[in-house]
Amino acid sequence: MAAGLTHSTDLSPVDGIRLAGCSAGIYGAARDDLALFEICDGARVSAVFTRNRFCAAPVTVARKHLQHGPVKYLLVNAGNANAGTGAQGVNDATQVCEALAGLAGCAAEAVLPFSTGVIGEYLPVDKICRALPELLDRLADDAWPDCARAIMTTDTRLKGSTATGVGPEAFAVTGIAKGAGMIKPDMATMLAFIATDANVSQGALDRILKTAVDESFNRICVDGDTSTNDACVLVATGKNNAGRMVGEAGPAYDRLEALITELCTRLAQEIVRDGEGATKFVTVRVDNARSETECTAVADALATSPLVKTALYASDPNWGRILAAIGRSKGVDLDIDRISVHLNEVCIVENGARAKDYTEERGIAAMQDDEIEIRIDLNQGTASACYWTCDLSHDYVTINAEYRS
Amino acid sequence: MAAGLTHSTDLSPVDGIRLAGCSAGIYGAARDDLALFEICDGARVSAVFTRNRFCAAPVTVARKHLQHGPVKYLLVNAGNANAGTGAQGVNDATQVCEALAGLAGCAAEAVLPFSTGVIGEYLPVDKICRALPELLDRLADDAWPDCARAIMTTDTRLKGSTATGVGPEAFAVTGIAKGAGMIKPDMATMLAFIATDANVSQGALDRILKTAVDESFNRICVDGDTSTNDACVLVATGKNNAGRMVGEAGPAYDRLEALITELCTRLAQEIVRDGEGATKFVTVRVDNARSETECTAVADALATSPLVKTALYASDPNWGRILAAIGRSKGVDLDIDRISVHLNEVCIVENGARAKDYTEERGIAAMQDDEIEIRIDLNQGTASACYWTCDLSHDYVTINAEYRS
Repeated sequence: MAAGLTHSTDLSPVDGIRLAGCSAGIYGAARDDLALFEICDGARVSAVFTRNRFCAAPVTVARKHLQHGPVKYLLVNAGNANAGTGAQGVNDATQVCEALAGLAGCAAEAVLPFSTGVIGEYLPVDKICRALPELLDRLADDAWPDCARAIMTTDTRLKGSTATGVGPEAFAVTGIAKGAGMIKPDMATMLAFIATDANVSQGALDRILKTAVDESFNRICVDGDTSTNDACVLVATGKNNAGRMVGEAGPAYDRLEALITELCTRLAQEIVRDGEGATKFVTVRVDNARSETECTAVADALATSPLVKTALYASDPNWGRILAAIGRSKGVDLDIDRISVHLNEVCIVENGARAKDYTEERGIAAMQDDEIEIRIDLNQGTASACYWTCDLSHDYVTINAEYRS
Repeated sequence: MAAGLTHSTDLSPVDGIRLAGCSAGIYGAARDDLALFEICDGARVSAVFTRNRFCAAPVTVARKHLQHGPVKYLLVNAGNANAGTGAQGVNDATQVCEALAGLAGCAAEAVLPFSTGVIGEYLPVDKICRALPELLDRLADDAWPDCARAIMTTDTRLKGSTATGVGPEAFAVTGIAKGAGMIKPDMATMLAFIATDANVSQGALDRILKTAVDESFNRICVDGDTSTNDACVLVATGKNNAGRMVGEAGPAYDRLEALITELCTRLAQEIVRDGEGATKFVTVRVDNARSETECTAVADALATSPLVKTALYASDPNWGRILAAIGRSKGVDLDIDRISVHLNEVCIVENGARAKDYTEERGIAAMQDDEIEIRIDLNQGTASACYWTCDLSHDYVTINAEYRS
């Protein structure tokens, strides 16, 4: 199931990036499960990783390799997370990097490994290594959709987006992502790979990625569980405007940051729309808080509430559950008598209690939509933020009671 | 559905407490929905309430009345939570207290009101007031089961327990509780009413209640949602050993605290066993942490994980999800390489990775039980604590997509 997910496989190439997807046979089925990104010389790479303490072996290895210098390849497999695999997991991830480095003639540290899939099984190193020559052979600049498909697990649709900037530089940005379950903001909450042709200083690139992730992937929730393998990588190839470096401030920085944040937001929303079992796409908008942290704390309480999410599934305007969730939000000093809540255009709560002109009929009508906006006005400050989530359906239980690989 | 819930309606009277249940017609169906506790003169009362900021009107009123002096009556209705009802809700709760006070010849402040049921509807004051004379007429010392039944909402079984102390005092303690959904520890997480015939100082009573609740009701989770109406009340009638006051220390204090903690633990476990849609009763035991807070943080991450709970439902030893949940526990500085995890007697993880002698067959066998213990050894301290939860089933979604009153 997926809530209003439309996608385009029309993903523009980014000058300086070649890609390929293929099947290494990690899944029994005939599907691609291995993706490779080749990054041109002179590009800069920024990455954020899961903050789950049980981080997977590839996360450990990728973090280490990233400190060594230029990144040449991103190698991603689906079907196996290489998490909960201890020292052998780290050896396995390293071995795969070494195999690729040997074939491609680069240092093993120039390869960042990524894995997604079942936790607790050892990585099928041989299968992956056997597929590497074919993967290198296939490298092409238009294989973004192939890669997007190869990294899917319980995703029902591939997730990718392209954006082109306006203004003198007209930066190109293309990104892909995967994720449908075990989705809860904490740094980065899935796999996403984004590339731009902009020429960006390392400091600016790091700052742009942090801002973009904080306002997109860190504001989504499918089920409240944080993955062991999440990573989001941003590559700037520098092929566009090679002579003019985007620094940490100025109009070019602002335009690039806006572009990448917009693209990350689209990818993040695609993950929610394809949330396991999702039938509704829900935007939680919190207005007039004292800080953005307050906004996300309130939104997070709603987005992780099984009671709110089952009411959304049932199209039931059971707004008492919304109030109860707001009331348990963490670290927010609420003046409940000032709070108002809207379901789409219908005001359901004002001054902390049922709105005077609210009728059950209007609430039910608002809840029929597949796209719901819950707007919470805290009336105690000036900060606002949006957050995206989905409902909790029978299919979520079915998928997760049956899914192992 | 309920996970291994057996109960006895054999609840012993407590000298100094009379009770009654009746139908006020709040539910359309012919069932009791109103309960009254009458407390003898000279008794002491201690109570804890929800920390949800959207606390219900009766919680506000009960807190206020409790500061006024001796409590004579606890009046509890099911079928309506009187929450999200603003100033009118507080007026309604006060009006019901005044009506009972008028009939019984006591101060309105001697009545504590409690409500549970649908949020956001106004309290049916007239229906409740009309039922009060019958309720007063019916007061008897053996009506604990009637009251337990009258306060049920989505509960499928009544919840009550009786304990009798050993030692010179042989205190009697009886308690009842309700709760099946919107269950997540935060002070008190449901309604519970407990009475003992012990003669206890107010300081000792308050301390005993806090300890007992912290180790029982604050260690359970059905769905992670915190109710607006939770309350737990402990009454000490002083009819036993009237001459000897239990103070804040000494063997009598220790015995009474142990007795009440044990009884609260039994009631708390009954709530989990009757968790909405529950098919399994799960004990999460965390050993060798640096503090009890660390234990409960780790247990809480597991108990609120939809992925762990759906795997439990499927009897699937998907232990990767257990590791991922441990890894996102809040405020715990984990050394993941020291962690071991057991499912019942089967060691699934040692030193932070899959245990050497673990086989899928052994994991599957352990998961077949309806009673599962997940034991997590952090190996970084000496503190231990238990926590209780249930699985997440199709029935949870069905119940909460359909439940409104």
